[in-house]
Amino acid sequence: MIDVYSWPTPNGHKVHIMLEECGWRLGRDWQVHAINIGQGDQFQPDFLKISQNNKIPALVDPDGPDGKPISLFESGAILLYLAAKAGKLLPKTDRQKFDVLQWLMFQMGGVGPMLGQAHHFRLYAPEKIEYAINRYTNEAKRLYGVMNAQVAKHPFIAGKQYSVADIAIFPWLRSWQNQGIDWADYPHLKVWFDRINARPAVQRGVAVLADARKPLTDDKARDVLFGQTQYKKR
Amino acid sequence: MIDVYSWPTPNGHKVHIMLEECGWRLGRDWQVHAINIGQGDQFQPDFLKISQNNKIPALVDPDGPDGKPISLFESGAILLYLAAKAGKLLPKTDRQKFDVLQWLMFQMGGVGPMLGQAHHFRLYAPEKIEYAINRYTNEAKRLYGVMNAQVAKHPFIAGKQYSVADIAIFPWLRSWQNQGIDWADYPHLKVWFDRINARPAVQRGVAVLADARKPLTDDKARDVLFGQTQYKKR
Repeated sequence: MIDVYSWPTPNGHKVHIMLEECGWRLGRDWQVHAINIGQGDQFQPDFLKISQNNKIPALVDPDGPDGKPISLFESGAILLYLAAKAGKLLPKTDRQKFDVLQWLMFQMGGVGPMLGQAHHFRLYAPEKIEYAINRYTNEAKRLYGVMNAQVAKHPFIAGKQYSVADIAIFPWLRSWQNQGIDWADYPHLKVWFDRINARPAVQRGVAVLADARKPLTDDKARDVLFGQTQYKKR
Repeated sequence: MIDVYSWPTPNGHKVHIMLEECGWRLGRDWQVHAINIGQGDQFQPDFLKISQNNKIPALVDPDGPDGKPISLFESGAILLYLAAKAGKLLPKTDRQKFDVLQWLMFQMGGVGPMLGQAHHFRLYAPEKIEYAINRYTNEAKRLYGVMNAQVAKHPFIAGKQYSVADIAIFPWLRSWQNQGIDWADYPHLKVWFDRINARPAVQRGVAVLADARKPLTDDKARDVLFGQTQYKKR
């Protein structure tokens, strides 16, 4: 049984969706351990051992590449690990594989971090800072434009085949309302979004731990997530 | 001859260093095309064709995986492509390979974007916004702490072997002064930094286009990089 340490955030959803898309079923092939990032579970020493960056998701597979357990953090690396293990969702031919990898990196380096900053300054920061809100809302729109242009030409983000690149990007776009996005400006991307969203494995993936997460309203959670806790000396 | 479209920024340096570490020499095996991001070269239609995200670096290899040309963007994907082509700097065994991939993703999703935001708010933003400066300076320190703990135990960022993960992280740490970092707080990481910095291929890599970049002082460059140019409708 694969152990997943996670929370229902976009980076957690990537891994939940991937496992289900690979044909592994929650409760049968994998189990989830809730790491409540609003309560500070990510700073517990036991979690730090498997996720040195104190972030979800992390994964422990007792049946690793050499038959021994393997522990991994970083959602992008976990997607590539599961793709290799299942032999799915990452093309076998090099040309197509590198097409997928470039869009996966585009998600890891752009879509995730920048939409995350948009969420922070639009929703969570204790003060409304117009410069930062504009900066990240503009960047969100730019990124949506890049993706819209790509899926105007191809059914999936890296071309003809559904891949880890789609799985990495999709969960971040579920929060479009928090990013200042109007879907009317990105019609091709909306078609793509609906296509991914309709997949049964995707629906199962985003349902994982869905009841556990509460809207971020209390000051304690805010302090744990954005205050000094995370910057304590190790 | 491999064509590299680049500029002497951390993401550009990754690719320059990687090519040199693989044994390919500038002028003999690869050539560089300066994309002056302060002048807006990244928005030219010809560049957009090979870098759909309008960012450097991009690479065109006339001798791709199937013998035909291949074009790639995103520094992380380019590193993996070159590692596969050269058969270097990415371990062959799965366990070690995924160790490297998780630290490469840590760079792509954390070190790069967050140190980039630190640079922006500490140096380039037209107003000094204390909240944002603190947010990204604190995050820089947290990331340095994670890396310092890792290289306290291992000679290289992903373990015993020098890899694409070291090459991806190193160029971002060259700008430590712009990130509010005091090396005295991260002694193990400083040892690692000096070890990487001493490599001849690394020195050749960071020298590429070094004379082309001027300090960002004029308003036109500032507008091209941080103003509305990048957000024009496609």
